[in-house]
Amino acid sequence: MTAQGILYGVGVGPGDPKLMTIRAGEVIRAADVLAYLVNGSGTSRARSIAAALIPKGAHELPLHVPMREEREPARAAYDIAATSISNHLGAGRSVAYLCVGDPLFYGSFMYLAARLSGAHKIEVVPGVTSLSACAARTLVPLGGRTDVLSVVPATLGEDALKSALADADAASIIKVGRHFAKVRGVLRALGLESRATLLESVTGKEERISAVEDLAENGAGEEGAPYFSTILVRRRELS
Amino acid sequence: MTAQGILYGVGVGPGDPKLMTIRAGEVIRAADVLAYLVNGSGTSRARSIAAALIPKGAHELPLHVPMREEREPARAAYDIAATSISNHLGAGRSVAYLCVGDPLFYGSFMYLAARLSGAHKIEVVPGVTSLSACAARTLVPLGGRTDVLSVVPATLGEDALKSALADADAASIIKVGRHFAKVRGVLRALGLESRATLLESVTGKEERISAVEDLAENGAGEEGAPYFSTILVRRRELS
Repeated sequence: MTAQGILYGVGVGPGDPKLMTIRAGEVIRAADVLAYLVNGSGTSRARSIAAALIPKGAHELPLHVPMREEREPARAAYDIAATSISNHLGAGRSVAYLCVGDPLFYGSFMYLAARLSGAHKIEVVPGVTSLSACAARTLVPLGGRTDVLSVVPATLGEDALKSALADADAASIIKVGRHFAKVRGVLRALGLESRATLLESVTGKEERISAVEDLAENGAGEEGAPYFSTILVRRRELS
Repeated sequence: MTAQGILYGVGVGPGDPKLMTIRAGEVIRAADVLAYLVNGSGTSRARSIAAALIPKGAHELPLHVPMREEREPARAAYDIAATSISNHLGAGRSVAYLCVGDPLFYGSFMYLAARLSGAHKIEVVPGVTSLSACAARTLVPLGGRTDVLSVVPATLGEDALKSALADADAASIIKVGRHFAKVRGVLRALGLESRATLLESVTGKEERISAVEDLAENGAGEEGAPYFSTILVRRRELS
């Protein structure tokens, strides 16, 4: 009987390849199979961050999961992805699943872990989140002392956004993308617009950092901000 | 005129030295001066995580900041620390200030950055937070999809804790330490005790992970949980 392979959920950090951990590098170099999500055009941000570490001729397993409002197509795609991964593990091959940022911070890995943790051994290699990278690039602390920090997905409705942001000492609004105008409206209504910074593709090649109040109404151009963008808000300074 | 040195705020991650980033390693090996906070007995958790990377004969600058309820002694100590660091930078020496986890996530670096960013160049190397490490060790996602994640310091009073936790989809309660009994009481009152996990010294040598409801009333022994401990709470599963 072949020994089962291990599934690794590997955080590759926010964009700069030097923000990968030593452990992530070890796992990526040694894994039998490298898996990652690809978008509709077949490219993977996680793979491109890790590219220099991927051995030539490595077995790669690109996975496509439709990202829409309805959950059913995504669930079915995760079922299929889990089966492909399980087949490799059952044949004794280790699989490294590459994740932008940290695997269990608003990522896809949790859905695979939920499907595979019963039958397979899993090791998660935590990574630097885009939030820590945003703070690093602006010197705006995410939280300090007795701050409550709220991490708020921009995909929430206006009322839910407003209630999540109303009392927070500090907030990180993630997945801003096409929700920029809605988020900005909520920040303005709460008197927080002038205390907000938009960060796009932080530490990556396309990085852009702007005070929200300096941006045009629709955010970063015709199509709004990119999906991988974050707004940091602080209600007051710490000293 | 000597060129000014750069101040680096370096996140060394949650405890396992392999969870340092490639960039952290580069900076630690190359810095002229290594600075870090020490506790009353002169030891530094950040230094011990980075120990294997610190060159023999490196110039080290241990800094002591009293951690008490009153802010004034801490402010004065940060003023003195900033002056020592500034003197090195002014003489053209680079300084790497080592931080457990991430430098701008509930750490001490923000107080130095606030004092030094006007006159000196600063680069922050973001690190893996203890929260990501806690999620990795338990496979409990920190947040997903439309979850609002609240990061809540256990040092808050009972009412503030209750209001911060009442509506959160997911919460990470940090700096639990001697506040364990108070936090547990609030979780019980909110019906969340059975959904909470306590993690102590995660990824480090003393790591311990327990379901909160399995622990004795006072937590982890006579003195409560250690300072570097976290409680993760999830209100519901994601699928």
